[in-house]
Amino acid sequence: MATFDLAEHPHRRYNPLTGEWVLVSPHRSKRPWQGQQEEQACDTRPEYDPTCYLCPTNTRANGEQNPAYTSTYVFDNDFGALQDGVPEGAYVVGGLIRAESERGICRVICFSPRHDLTLAEMEAAEIRKVVDLWQKEYAELGSLDFINYVQIFENKGSIMGCSNPHPHGQIWAQSTVPVEPAKETTQQEQYFEQHGRSLLADYLQLELERRERVVVENEHFVALVPFWAVWPFETIIISKRHFQHIGQMSEEEKDGFSQIIQSLTATYDRVFGVSFPYSSGIHQSPTDGQAYPGWHFHMHFYPPLLRSATVKKFMVGYEMMGNPQRDITPEAAARLLRDLVTTS
Amino acid sequence: MATFDLAEHPHRRYNPLTGEWVLVSPHRSKRPWQGQQEEQACDTRPEYDPTCYLCPTNTRANGEQNPAYTSTYVFDNDFGALQDGVPEGAYVVGGLIRAESERGICRVICFSPRHDLTLAEMEAAEIRKVVDLWQKEYAELGSLDFINYVQIFENKGSIMGCSNPHPHGQIWAQSTVPVEPAKETTQQEQYFEQHGRSLLADYLQLELERRERVVVENEHFVALVPFWAVWPFETIIISKRHFQHIGQMSEEEKDGFSQIIQSLTATYDRVFGVSFPYSSGIHQSPTDGQAYPGWHFHMHFYPPLLRSATVKKFMVGYEMMGNPQRDITPEAAARLLRDLVTTS
Ligand SMILES: O=P(O)(O)O[C@H]1O[C@H](CO)[C@@H](O)[C@H](O)[C@H]1O
Ligand SMILES: O=P(O)(O)O[C@H]1O[C@H](CO)[C@@H](O)[C@H](O)[C@H]1O
Repeated sequence: MATFDLAEHPHRRYNPLTGEWVLVSPHRSKRPWQGQQEEQACDTRPEYDPTCYLCPTNTRANGEQNPAYTSTYVFDNDFGALQDGVPEGAYVVGGLIRAESERGICRVICFSPRHDLTLAEMEAAEIRKVVDLWQKEYAELGSLDFINYVQIFENKGSIMGCSNPHPHGQIWAQSTVPVEPAKETTQQEQYFEQHGRSLLADYLQLELERRERVVVENEHFVALVPFWAVWPFETIIISKRHFQHIGQMSEEEKDGFSQIIQSLTATYDRVFGVSFPYSSGIHQSPTDGQAYPGWHFHMHFYPPLLRSATVKKFMVGYEMMGNPQRDITPEAAARLLRDLVTTS
Repeated sequence: MATFDLAEHPHRRYNPLTGEWVLVSPHRSKRPWQGQQEEQACDTRPEYDPTCYLCPTNTRANGEQNPAYTSTYVFDNDFGALQDGVPEGAYVVGGLIRAESERGICRVICFSPRHDLTLAEMEAAEIRKVVDLWQKEYAELGSLDFINYVQIFENKGSIMGCSNPHPHGQIWAQSTVPVEPAKETTQQEQYFEQHGRSLLADYLQLELERRERVVVENEHFVALVPFWAVWPFETIIISKRHFQHIGQMSEEEKDGFSQIIQSLTATYDRVFGVSFPYSSGIHQSPTDGQAYPGWHFHMHFYPPLLRSATVKKFMVGYEMMGNPQRDITPEAAARLLRDLVTTS
């Protein structure tokens, strides 16, 4: 009988950050596709769009006017999913029906005054201003009494539910720690207690020795396809130094972070020759005042495209009822991405 | 200050089946939508399509010919994500890089010879034949030594990654228990140990007293929008009697199950006047030979549509990085669905 081969045989992989598994079916990359194809968004946009509610000087839905901003711009989401002034309270029936009110703040961050740019098309120096703003917002929101977690993220592309092509991200800051960072808290703190080192520092060391899944690297950060990646071209940016949150980033680290975001997102755009859609997000320690020695700052990128600019990976029936499943292996995806990095 | 109101204020709800939370933002239903709209699939199909690889007598990709079947038809998936003959093995590096080979079987179940029907359009008596086949497959696959979990599911509609409109579902049966049923195992068995009753039986009782979230009911089953629903029109079918798996369903219960599936899916089709897309799946006890006194048979329906036939709910940035979020409340969704049920 043949011996087990990661590149050939169906298997599951363990995600030590969440404690969950993903099913990998390498042989399945060969199956034909007759299903839904996404429309390819026509991508010529003007530098300024008078109808865009994010462009400088334009008026938003609530009647407020954007300033003539020249780099980044942040404002409270006019239709935020979280609200500041929610009364405290709970609704509990018989232990099995349980709700709790949740206070929070939702903000929108415009990355650039230019309507036609994405992070991938911006200079690292411009991205640095976004990183500075993320740092400022994390500190400001995190210092509020009722904010215990600050989720910074971006939905890029209409396929990711992004409703406005003007380059922007969001911050949802709230009273409780959401499910995913809560899992990562448990796993990382437990690892730290047992080993006295951070889970991601140890993992990064293994990856840097092997280099099989590394996509691009600089002095302070590494972008790689994690061994347990769920999305076809999923990556994670991990800081080389073990620190808990963006507030602890040095000036040089902020430059390095900007540079690796630039490089990774530009690489993505080369995969299928289109502006590559993804959802990205920073995971870092809660802001509830407790110490989290095990937390290790990182950023996830979850891009849905699989075979082409118009065929995505569907996370549906089995994935919803069982667990995520992928075809192309993380190693093959990393190889493909690595070959498209140009270090300028 | 106002008092906390589930229909007004952002809050989170607890899912006792998984131990996880969902963020609910009732006020947000009012936000305008300028993002991606799905194409509406043109829905006139012939009864028989000579190019469909699922229609009777047609030839599949692997050269095999389908029989001239007249009710249901099951075969091994030609491009299964799981395979029977995988060599045993593991790949472990330093504890943080961990993979295990996984054996399994993937099957496709045609619900009807008719290319143009969906479960919603079939008679309960025809659906009964699908239920019979599910029961048979669960028993057959579950009795195999290396199969410890049998996941029965359906992806309906191209928006759910369904690559062929011929009405069909799938079964992925495998050696390990996938992540979602594993969570439900933990939660249900723990509840049973503490209370001596099944979690879902107790929950169902609360819902039947309130009737706020009940959509439709018959002698043996109830379909309702769970208090912790993630998808806009998510529902769950729960058996009134507490049993572990489809193998234990009586003849009358199988009739009741067929009837409630018919009624619920037909109701879905009335929401936006289109063939309603969803992923559905049966959750039941593992087939590893252990006793699972807490497990309570149920079926989930996860439909993506939100505001119209072409605007879906995107589970993206915040949802991927934090936890699921919804706008319309489960109570409002249940009201809307309940009003569309016609009991014939
Ligand atoms: O097997 P199918 O219908 O071709 O494929 C569909 O369902 C599978 C199981 O949920 C998913 O893994 C695929 O991404 C989806 O396109
Ligand atoms: O806030 P937006 O960009 O309008 O909305 C988008 O991102 C949100 C956060 O991930 C999601 O809840 C929405 O479903 C999605 O359409």
